[in-house]
Amino acid sequence: MRSMLVAGLVWGLTFGPALADSLPSWQEGPTKAAIVAFIDGVADPDSADFVPPEDRIAVFDNDGTLWAEKPFYFQLFFAIDQAKSAAIAKPGAPQDPALAAAAAGDLEALAEQGEAGLLALIAGTHAGTTPDEFEEAVRDWLTEARHPEKDRPFTELVYQPMLELLDYLRDKEFQVYIVSGGGIAFMRAWTEPVYGVPPEQVIGSSMVLEYVDGPDGPSIQRQPEVNFINDKAGKPIGIQRHIGKRPIFAGGNSDGDLQMLSWTTAGAGPRFALLVHHTDAEREWAYDRESHVGRLDKALDKAGQDGWTVIDMKNDWLTVFPPAP
Amino acid sequence: MRSMLVAGLVWGLTFGPALADSLPSWQEGPTKAAIVAFIDGVADPDSADFVPPEDRIAVFDNDGTLWAEKPFYFQLFFAIDQAKSAAIAKPGAPQDPALAAAAAGDLEALAEQGEAGLLALIAGTHAGTTPDEFEEAVRDWLTEARHPEKDRPFTELVYQPMLELLDYLRDKEFQVYIVSGGGIAFMRAWTEPVYGVPPEQVIGSSMVLEYVDGPDGPSIQRQPEVNFINDKAGKPIGIQRHIGKRPIFAGGNSDGDLQMLSWTTAGAGPRFALLVHHTDAEREWAYDRESHVGRLDKALDKAGQDGWTVIDMKNDWLTVFPPAP
Repeated sequence: MRSMLVAGLVWGLTFGPALADSLPSWQEGPTKAAIVAFIDGVADPDSADFVPPEDRIAVFDNDGTLWAEKPFYFQLFFAIDQAKSAAIAKPGAPQDPALAAAAAGDLEALAEQGEAGLLALIAGTHAGTTPDEFEEAVRDWLTEARHPEKDRPFTELVYQPMLELLDYLRDKEFQVYIVSGGGIAFMRAWTEPVYGVPPEQVIGSSMVLEYVDGPDGPSIQRQPEVNFINDKAGKPIGIQRHIGKRPIFAGGNSDGDLQMLSWTTAGAGPRFALLVHHTDAEREWAYDRESHVGRLDKALDKAGQDGWTVIDMKNDWLTVFPPAP
Repeated sequence: MRSMLVAGLVWGLTFGPALADSLPSWQEGPTKAAIVAFIDGVADPDSADFVPPEDRIAVFDNDGTLWAEKPFYFQLFFAIDQAKSAAIAKPGAPQDPALAAAAAGDLEALAEQGEAGLLALIAGTHAGTTPDEFEEAVRDWLTEARHPEKDRPFTELVYQPMLELLDYLRDKEFQVYIVSGGGIAFMRAWTEPVYGVPPEQVIGSSMVLEYVDGPDGPSIQRQPEVNFINDKAGKPIGIQRHIGKRPIFAGGNSDGDLQMLSWTTAGAGPRFALLVHHTDAEREWAYDRESHVGRLDKALDKAGQDGWTVIDMKNDWLTVFPPAP
């Protein structure tokens, strides 16, 4: 009895994780096999591909890679709802046209304001608070807001197969970072409970911050001005600033991730680039080269040339979103 | 025999760390007692001061706090030596007056160029390379360079008591960050072997980085322009950007750390601020309110008002520098 127990323990410790499927939402096939082979290879001290744990850095885009991004980036829903709340709280206040359009829920008028309008909307809804206050506003919003088409909280529109992949990487002693064009403070409000990624492993676009030593003591105030856009060529730079090491694993889904994946794979030694291709019009959305949000064009060509692993969402994922809790 | 073994193991696990002195270079007394009481309190699940491990963030200034900073910041020795090497490699090349003064070893002429000259020296010696190349240059320099007065490698002029403190904090599941006005890339080249602090836990001043997609593939190039000065009010901002949490423990030694310590201690719950007071003219240097490098004036007043813990180097530290290896 006792020796059986010991044998069971030894078996569990030695073979358990390998035999149990850590990626149950992934269809058996070349995509899953390539991911598992890479991760297991770099984590195996007896493999020629072994990488010491401190260099096992994995980076993931967020919008369209870890959670959905249609009909448009979820952070924009937040900004619009904040503009609406502000307009209710202060009716008649003079407003920027982009803020007024957002408050009125007039997306066409908002779109007409172009990129400058979008920046004005962000400046008007993402500043004037401390980081703590801002994160609380994001969390409050997340408990109430629902996706207009899927009728679920936005944080339930994360990809179940990617949650399993993040866990698998961490099981293999990877440090997992998010590297997104989205706002760093917006994401930090919820990435730890949702993805298991703590604030210090979130890299994103940021607003200017100001340190204020006021009568109630010191505080940090978010200013209505963009500090850094962590997209395209900004992603490798954001990674260098925050991590100071080149990742060995990078996942993305759009041309905004092209430089991050190129830079990751251009390093010496084993490297892995993963692209989510949105091919599932039924369970999620189907889009690539012509999409306004999350366009995947140049990066798809590069994936073909360089042998990056491309996830065919429709066929590679048995489940897309986690079941409702 | 076996039960003795088990008892020994249980004893070792339960009482070992408390009985063994983790801070042997610290004189028994109120400074050491305050440090140990705080760390043990926040790490004790049965204490009213318990803080969960994910919030056990400790931040330390570098120059004058973890290693020495006299006669001037060690990074400046590096910059001067780089200017000399560049002048030898390219004799007769047209040079900025600050670079020329540095190359000639004329510190008075360099000082005459003021802050603009210092920035020119940094721009001229810290740019034009990739981050990897720059860090290699720093490591190469560290193997050769010697402190002019102490005649030891600069990385041996770290404070033994602080090395012990960093280890003690990590033993108690703190995340230890460096938050320095010094260059982030300069420090990342050596903080892991010297302090056990990996690159991703180093926060510092930075140069502008550019992503270049050249014929040999992508690279990041350091530009001759300062991106961010991580000093004074910049320290809380650097912390917010990199970590996204307010530390509960902060250590510094100068007025450049005033805002970091103020911001740390202004948070709710148990907080600890530690100041190194350089009082040891024999073993190290003695300086505070009148010093040009590492002036400790306002922060010393604040420490008195707010009950921060001040290390009296001469009396609180049994050892200053580690023995030569």
